[in-house]
Amino acid sequence: METIRVERAKTLKEKPNPDTVKFGVSFTDHMFLMNYADGKGWYDPRIVPYGPIPLEPSAMVFHYAQEIFEGLKAYRRADGKVQLFRPRDNIRRLNTSAQRLCIPTLDEDLALEAICQLVRLDESWVPSKEGTSLYIRPFIIATDPTVGVHSSHTYLFAVILCPVGSYYPEGINPVKIFVETEDVRAVRGGTGFAKTGGNYAATIRAAERAGQKGFTQVLWLDGVERKYIEEVGTMNVLFKINGEVVTPPLSGSILAGITRDSCIQLLRSWGVPVTERKITAVELFAAGESGALEEAFGSGTAAVISPIGEMDWDGRRVIVSGGKIGPLSQRLYDTLTGIQWGKVPDPFGWVLPL
Amino acid sequence: METIRVERAKTLKEKPNPDTVKFGVSFTDHMFLMNYADGKGWYDPRIVPYGPIPLEPSAMVFHYAQEIFEGLKAYRRADGKVQLFRPRDNIRRLNTSAQRLCIPTLDEDLALEAICQLVRLDESWVPSKEGTSLYIRPFIIATDPTVGVHSSHTYLFAVILCPVGSYYPEGINPVKIFVETEDVRAVRGGTGFAKTGGNYAATIRAAERAGQKGFTQVLWLDGVERKYIEEVGTMNVLFKINGEVVTPPLSGSILAGITRDSCIQLLRSWGVPVTERKITAVELFAAGESGALEEAFGSGTAAVISPIGEMDWDGRRVIVSGGKIGPLSQRLYDTLTGIQWGKVPDPFGWVLPL
Repeated sequence: METIRVERAKTLKEKPNPDTVKFGVSFTDHMFLMNYADGKGWYDPRIVPYGPIPLEPSAMVFHYAQEIFEGLKAYRRADGKVQLFRPRDNIRRLNTSAQRLCIPTLDEDLALEAICQLVRLDESWVPSKEGTSLYIRPFIIATDPTVGVHSSHTYLFAVILCPVGSYYPEGINPVKIFVETEDVRAVRGGTGFAKTGGNYAATIRAAERAGQKGFTQVLWLDGVERKYIEEVGTMNVLFKINGEVVTPPLSGSILAGITRDSCIQLLRSWGVPVTERKITAVELFAAGESGALEEAFGSGTAAVISPIGEMDWDGRRVIVSGGKIGPLSQRLYDTLTGIQWGKVPDPFGWVLPL
Repeated sequence: METIRVERAKTLKEKPNPDTVKFGVSFTDHMFLMNYADGKGWYDPRIVPYGPIPLEPSAMVFHYAQEIFEGLKAYRRADGKVQLFRPRDNIRRLNTSAQRLCIPTLDEDLALEAICQLVRLDESWVPSKEGTSLYIRPFIIATDPTVGVHSSHTYLFAVILCPVGSYYPEGINPVKIFVETEDVRAVRGGTGFAKTGGNYAATIRAAERAGQKGFTQVLWLDGVERKYIEEVGTMNVLFKINGEVVTPPLSGSILAGITRDSCIQLLRSWGVPVTERKITAVELFAAGESGALEEAFGSGTAAVISPIGEMDWDGRRVIVSGGKIGPLSQRLYDTLTGIQWGKVPDPFGWVLPL
């Protein structure tokens, strides 16, 4: 494996207050960079001081969004050590995204080593306060300085880090969502399963409209029939109906969430039946109205579990679990965050101590 | 209207050979830039020397592809003067894209003035050889240095210019295309009608596979039923069937091409019936096999008219117009390029002399 060159920052930045730091705003002292060129492959892996990336205005990423990313976290344990959660799964998913976007894949071991070395170097940025963590953002952008539409011949792989405060500083507050009936996030045959910028750009308008109507996020329907539930906001979504957990299958337009997979594995280990199957908004709201819908929640790296307290759909309103977090959602949240922060055993081998 | 500040380049670049210059590779001496910030609006319109744009690695455009662009051309007439083709329509479409992507719109007059001033300053870059032109690429990117998913609070609007050689240096050569049955470019409710990076990123894989199979481009089907023709490659598509020109309607997943609209207006002025209606691949191939399909062509800024000589669909093959450009396609090409280069009258008021 290639050696990672390290150029240390001459001056170190002041760290933000972990009580008030906002998600994704303050970045650490260093970043990892590696370039790619056709015929040469990935080259010059290096850790350098965090700073601007100068790109030609014609760089392909600005015009054709040939770009992919990942998101994962480093957690400070009570004993002071730092650990990652399923980092190899993020790297594998980055490579899956790369294939869809015609971006050259990364060597898994090198990418993992890059993340580990970078986090180790900036380890003092991993906060220790309850619920805080260091968010890790690996991403790849197309850098060819030409405006023809084709896959780029050059790329930049970067990893940046930012300390993040507790997602729930005032306790878990279930969200209000509504079924989005106009905009569509993704469609089979598109890029919905890949973590690529275009999927997120497409969701901004619906999220803004949701906010204006007093909702936190939208529930996405499939792009073909506009019948089936797909995701909630930028998270996967799971429902507990009559004692069984139901979540949409990975049909091509849904992101293969690592938190989603962790939930499924945990639930099955507890003997809770989980079914990955299509579920229509009609079925969901009928279950909500009959009382069969016991819990509903989003799953993702940032929130881990985001309970849904209220769902609206064209004037129909369903309160879920009395507007509070349900017991299974709470157990998943406690177990997952327990494993992530090293407070409870990790029978699945998910954590990687640095 | 705000005054555009001009900072001239100290050294001018050598111009590329117009016989060999590739599309989108060589950029001129200057570029236009203007920033946006919430509460402040668009500010500091300026023409500066062409050069790298330094962005934070956390800039939203790298992660969530909140980005839009346009493409138009400046043409050198026989009398040496330079003119633009329907530039205001491009600016309007940029604003339409902006609305879908939650990007603040531009003042039309200022944007047009920016383009005109920039082209005037770099006018010596507009080549004069037959078929050559200066390609103009306005674009807007989200620059917030934060990795939360929301619309950016800051943006950069830029215009860059590149001389382009003749699209058909060896005469018009019809292309071979095939019906893409796996990947999808866009779906209603998505971003297909906007000129935004994600739409293009999604098409790269299919275009690469087409190339590997010996085809120039793919014919896109709709994302819902995968039955209806939408576009060809990155162009709109038109078919002449039994004397009538048929083109897919602007249903939300199709780009409202300015060349498409120019074709429709020209055809109608010639008394050729044009219908904007859905057309299935089944109908198209049946028309091809029966001989009812007389001509087929893509329309776009780069090629103007790109005749389709052969279409394949799951093993079925149709040769269109004997594999040659048809008379109506040729007339459209000659008339449009004639108007663009100032060789024939412009009854529609499409050209804007600088």
